[in-house]
Amino acid sequence: MRGAVLHGPGDVRFEERDAPRIIKATDAIIRMSATCVCGSDLWDYRGINPVAQPTPIGHEYCGIVEEVGSAVRSIKPGQFVIGSFFASDNTCPNCQAGYQSSCQHREFVGGAQAGLLRVPLADGTLVATPDVPSDDLIPSLLTLSDVMGTGWFAADAANVRPGKTVAVVGDGAVGLLGVLSARQMGAGRIIAMSSHESRQKLAREFGATDIVTERGDEGVARIKELTNGIGADAVLECVGTQESMMQAIHSTRPGGYVGYVGVPHGVALNGQELFFAHVHLHGGPAPVRRFLPKLIDLVWNRKVNPGKVFDLTLPLDRVAEGYRAMDERRAIKTLLRP
Amino acid sequence: MRGAVLHGPGDVRFEERDAPRIIKATDAIIRMSATCVCGSDLWDYRGINPVAQPTPIGHEYCGIVEEVGSAVRSIKPGQFVIGSFFASDNTCPNCQAGYQSSCQHREFVGGAQAGLLRVPLADGTLVATPDVPSDDLIPSLLTLSDVMGTGWFAADAANVRPGKTVAVVGDGAVGLLGVLSARQMGAGRIIAMSSHESRQKLAREFGATDIVTERGDEGVARIKELTNGIGADAVLECVGTQESMMQAIHSTRPGGYVGYVGVPHGVALNGQELFFAHVHLHGGPAPVRRFLPKLIDLVWNRKVNPGKVFDLTLPLDRVAEGYRAMDERRAIKTLLRP
Repeated sequence: MRGAVLHGPGDVRFEERDAPRIIKATDAIIRMSATCVCGSDLWDYRGINPVAQPTPIGHEYCGIVEEVGSAVRSIKPGQFVIGSFFASDNTCPNCQAGYQSSCQHREFVGGAQAGLLRVPLADGTLVATPDVPSDDLIPSLLTLSDVMGTGWFAADAANVRPGKTVAVVGDGAVGLLGVLSARQMGAGRIIAMSSHESRQKLAREFGATDIVTERGDEGVARIKELTNGIGADAVLECVGTQESMMQAIHSTRPGGYVGYVGVPHGVALNGQELFFAHVHLHGGPAPVRRFLPKLIDLVWNRKVNPGKVFDLTLPLDRVAEGYRAMDERRAIKTLLRP
Repeated sequence: MRGAVLHGPGDVRFEERDAPRIIKATDAIIRMSATCVCGSDLWDYRGINPVAQPTPIGHEYCGIVEEVGSAVRSIKPGQFVIGSFFASDNTCPNCQAGYQSSCQHREFVGGAQAGLLRVPLADGTLVATPDVPSDDLIPSLLTLSDVMGTGWFAADAANVRPGKTVAVVGDGAVGLLGVLSARQMGAGRIIAMSSHESRQKLAREFGATDIVTERGDEGVARIKELTNGIGADAVLECVGTQESMMQAIHSTRPGGYVGYVGVPHGVALNGQELFFAHVHLHGGPAPVRRFLPKLIDLVWNRKVNPGKVFDLTLPLDRVAEGYRAMDERRAIKTLLRP
C-alpha cells in the first residue's frame, strides 16, 4: 500500500508502506474514499512541530469498512463511515460528558493520507451514514472528520445563540466552517475577519454578514465600531497564534464567549489581562464524535455544504503538491482521492 | 473625619481626612455601619501593588444613607444600603448583561475604611435592605459588598449545579464563601483545599464534605483520587497566584469549569496546556451588583450566615492592627466598626 510520509520540513513523499491490519479486537480497517490536508498538518510540514523520524501523516478520513476486529459490534464491513482524528471508546466519563477527544483511552489516528487506515476503538469512534453516499456528498462528509466538527465546536464553545453577534478570527477552512456553523445556530450577525478576496466570498456564501479586513488591534477596533463599542457576544478563534488569540479576547464583550480551536503555538495568556477582559474561554481539540450524528444528518439532507472549502482536488499520489498549495495559501484546503 | 490611609508597605494609618461630599448629582454619602479588610487590600499592604502616594483604602461597605445628589431617584436618606466596590450605572449594555463590574461608566469606590463614604452612581450601585437591620445581621450584610458576592461569582462562573462535585482552591474568606455558595447552589460534594485547622472547620460548617490539605501537584493528585481519576466538575480559584491557578485548572475534568476570582498576580497561562486541559475558564472582578438582591434576601431571611468569616472585630481606629492580623494569617477577615 502507498501513503503519505513526512520526512522533514517541506518533505512529504507518497511511498510504499506496510498495509494496516487488525491489531486489537476493537479495530477496524477502512478503505479510504477521500482524505485531505489539515491546517494543523502544516505545523509539522513547516517544521514548527519537530519531526523526529519519517512519519505517516494525515488524520481526516471517510470510507468503506473493509474489515473489523472480533470485538466490534456496531460497525460492519461495507458500511460508509466517518470518524474523528482521536479514536474514543465513547463510554468513559469524559466521553459521556461529550469530550470524546479527551477520552480516557483515546488514540490519535495518524497516517490517513493513504489507501487504507486502521481505526482503533471502532465502535466508539466511527459513525456510519444511512447508506453508501453518492459521490457528490463525499467532500462534505469528509469535512465532518475534523474541519467541520472543529468549526462547529468553536461556535458551540463560544455559546453562539439565535440573534447573537459573532466574530470569526481566521479565514482558513476551520474559520470558514465556523461561519457556517454560527449561521446554522441562528447567529444574527456574523463578522468574518479576512483580507483574502476568495475567502471573503466563501465566508459570505456560508453566512457572513460583515467582513473585517484589518488584523490585530486595528481589527479589534473595527469589531468595536461595528458593535457600539461593546464587542461581539461570541468570538471564534481559529488560528492559534498569540496575535489571533489576543484579537479574539479583545473583540469579545465583557461576559461574552471565546471559543478557541486553533492549536496554540507559542501562546501565553496574561492572567490579569484575561481577568479584566471578563470573557468566557473554552476550547481545545474538538470532540468531533459528539457532533457526528447531527452533522451527518445536516449533510445527508443537503442542508449544508461544507465541502465547498475544498478548492483543490488532487489524486492522492500528488499529495505533496496539495501540501505546497496550502502552505503557500494558494489553496484553502486540498481534497485527496485515492 | 478620620479614615484609613495607606502610606506604604505595612504602613496603614488612621488619620484626619476631608469628609466626602456630593460631587456629582448621582452621588450618595453613606454613614458607615461596618467596613472590613479585603484579601486584595493585602496586595497593596504588602507592596506587591506599588503605592505611589498616601491613599485612602478600603472598598467594602454598608451603612445608612446620609445625603443624596439631586439626580438620585431610588435611594433615600435613612435607608440601609449595600454596594459593590465598583460603582455602576446598571443601565449600560454591560450592566444589562449582568457584568456591572465592567460597566461602561464604572468607578472604583475607594476609601471605605472611614466613617463616611461617597458612592458614585448611587441609583445603579446601591441596594437598600427591606428595613434598617438588627445589629447581628450587619456582618453578613457587609460581606455582600464584596467577599460573599465574589465567592458567589466564583461558583456561578464555575457553573456549579445540583449534585456536581466542586473543589475550592484557597481558604481565605472568598474561598470559604465559595464553599457556602456552592452549597446553596446544590453541589453534591464540596472539596475544600486547606491546610489550616480553623479554616477547615469553618469550611465544613459552610458545607464542605471533604478537605484536601495538599497543595500544587500533590493537591491535584488528591482531587483526582477523590474523583475516580477524572477531576472535579467545577473548581473555584480564589487566590490569584500561578500555583493556585494551575492547581485549579489541573483539578478540573475535561469539559469542566474553572471560576477564577483571585486577582491574578504574575500569572501566565500556557496556551497549549490550557487547550489540552479542555476546561471552561471564566472569572474576573465579581459583578457583585448582579447578586445583591438575591444575597440580601438570603441573609435577611437568615438562610445563610456569611458573616462568620469575620473572626476578628475591631473598632475602626485600630484598623492597622486588623491589617497586621490578616497579613500574618492570624485572622481570616477583620471587621471594623466605626
